[in-house]
Amino acid sequence: MIQPGAASGSPPIFEKVAIIGLGLIGGSIALAVREHWPSSLVIGLDRKEVLEKAMVLHAIDVAADDPVVIAEADLVILAAPVEQNIVRLAELDRYVTTPAVVTDVGSTKRTTVKAARMLPSRFTFVGGHPLGGAPRSGIEYARSDLFVDRPWLFTPEGDGDAAVLERLCSFVRELGAKPEVIDPAEHDRLLAIVSHLPQLTASALMHVVGTTARERGLALTGRGLFDATRLASSPAHIWRDICGSNADAIGDALDDLIRELETLRRGLTSSTEIDRVFESAGTWRARLAELRPTTRSQ
Amino acid sequence: MIQPGAASGSPPIFEKVAIIGLGLIGGSIALAVREHWPSSLVIGLDRKEVLEKAMVLHAIDVAADDPVVIAEADLVILAAPVEQNIVRLAELDRYVTTPAVVTDVGSTKRTTVKAARMLPSRFTFVGGHPLGGAPRSGIEYARSDLFVDRPWLFTPEGDGDAAVLERLCSFVRELGAKPEVIDPAEHDRLLAIVSHLPQLTASALMHVVGTTARERGLALTGRGLFDATRLASSPAHIWRDICGSNADAIGDALDDLIRELETLRRGLTSSTEIDRVFESAGTWRARLAELRPTTRSQ
Repeated sequence: MIQPGAASGSPPIFEKVAIIGLGLIGGSIALAVREHWPSSLVIGLDRKEVLEKAMVLHAIDVAADDPVVIAEADLVILAAPVEQNIVRLAELDRYVTTPAVVTDVGSTKRTTVKAARMLPSRFTFVGGHPLGGAPRSGIEYARSDLFVDRPWLFTPEGDGDAAVLERLCSFVRELGAKPEVIDPAEHDRLLAIVSHLPQLTASALMHVVGTTARERGLALTGRGLFDATRLASSPAHIWRDICGSNADAIGDALDDLIRELETLRRGLTSSTEIDRVFESAGTWRARLAELRPTTRSQ
Repeated sequence: MIQPGAASGSPPIFEKVAIIGLGLIGGSIALAVREHWPSSLVIGLDRKEVLEKAMVLHAIDVAADDPVVIAEADLVILAAPVEQNIVRLAELDRYVTTPAVVTDVGSTKRTTVKAARMLPSRFTFVGGHPLGGAPRSGIEYARSDLFVDRPWLFTPEGDGDAAVLERLCSFVRELGAKPEVIDPAEHDRLLAIVSHLPQLTASALMHVVGTTARERGLALTGRGLFDATRLASSPAHIWRDICGSNADAIGDALDDLIRELETLRRGLTSSTEIDRVFESAGTWRARLAELRPTTRSQ
């Protein structure tokens, strides 16, 4: 079930939804659309092995390893890693012959939004970023309720098409998400801080702890390290693109953290230094807990 | 219940257990001893407000804000922050008049072990460190099963008293813990990496994310940041002492992390750099998950 009271069977906002890339996010969108609008056609594009899994999970109506099948899609969702989405954008003109709304679900927005400016005028592009997220990637972990009560950011450029934006907002609202509009550059700056920095920190921390403390040290840990490094199991292939396409903003965020760690390092024997960081961290952590949506079992 | 099948009512290993400092750890030891050996006398020393809570929770038999009541203790457990434990060690001669085993539960060991060398010969000191841990501090969160299936480290010096060490190991084994012996310096080095570094990293990360992304950014986060910063609610007063008493080892660990973050920062647009760190981190994270004891609800 997508949401208690969701009007399953309401008229579809898009008739033919092409989803390019069926990972956790693409697969979850596919499941949610099929569950919510049984009369919509969901076309999935990916490698053969992934398409087979998607068919077994009943996530898609049509499995395509040949993009020709998306010729008449009225919504195209780019759900591969960022660089692949940009490659796909450049190919759309060849494969999609009718006017279509195009969006993506990438974690960075500036490079994709910029690439989309080259699309022929029958396409209307609005960048998107659903903040679903789950500890594991891959269509095996897709779930139709992944977006329920979570923000789904849209990053239209200046005088974007307001009607298309509204259609996309309605679309994701029906899937349970909370659409929000944000400037692409502000999106990338904020996500660098709240998402990309924590990811790189968790990965670097796990790498350093593992290589210096080895098994002997890891056996002495508890929930603290376990939670602090949960993100460290994220797949490299997605993060290569995120880091590459948002390097300036991530670099700024990393600089801030490195500076803070250096200050802490110099102040290890100074109680005022420890107090300053711990008190600020404790206050922000409490605020984070207040802002957090209701927990969902994962 | 401490443990299925634990022989509650087995002869007490210590008759009069004095616990100085009734926080999460001291309070949990108190609860566990009272539950496991109803005939042992548990004497708690702390500030008046804490003692009142301890009495309400039935954690102690005798509440003392005057250390004179511990005169005949045969086991003294120092369970305040590290610097306070060291102050209490220096006072023991004045208050405890009979021979006694003395241990502590501090997160760093070298400074406490060194301070304990000054104890008169009627005391036998063995440093200890139960790796219980829970997300919150304070006797309110104490629980008699905090130590079940968790390591409890002891750090005897060179030719320590083997019989006393064995008594302490039996004592904590009966409380469900798994005693282990480790050299004080090796303890401090390993804990700096697997415990103190993750704590400082989580606090610095939360501080930087909060102060640069503010509420607007925090509202865009999910479970990733939430888990990565769970440790950031740890209280400063405990960490002041840990950082001060283990500054050299923590400094080395921080240097390693800072160096890794700087390398990552320079390599944001290099896929080999991202791959290197993410693959190492993913491997160690999987190893951590294998080594982890069965999860306990918190």
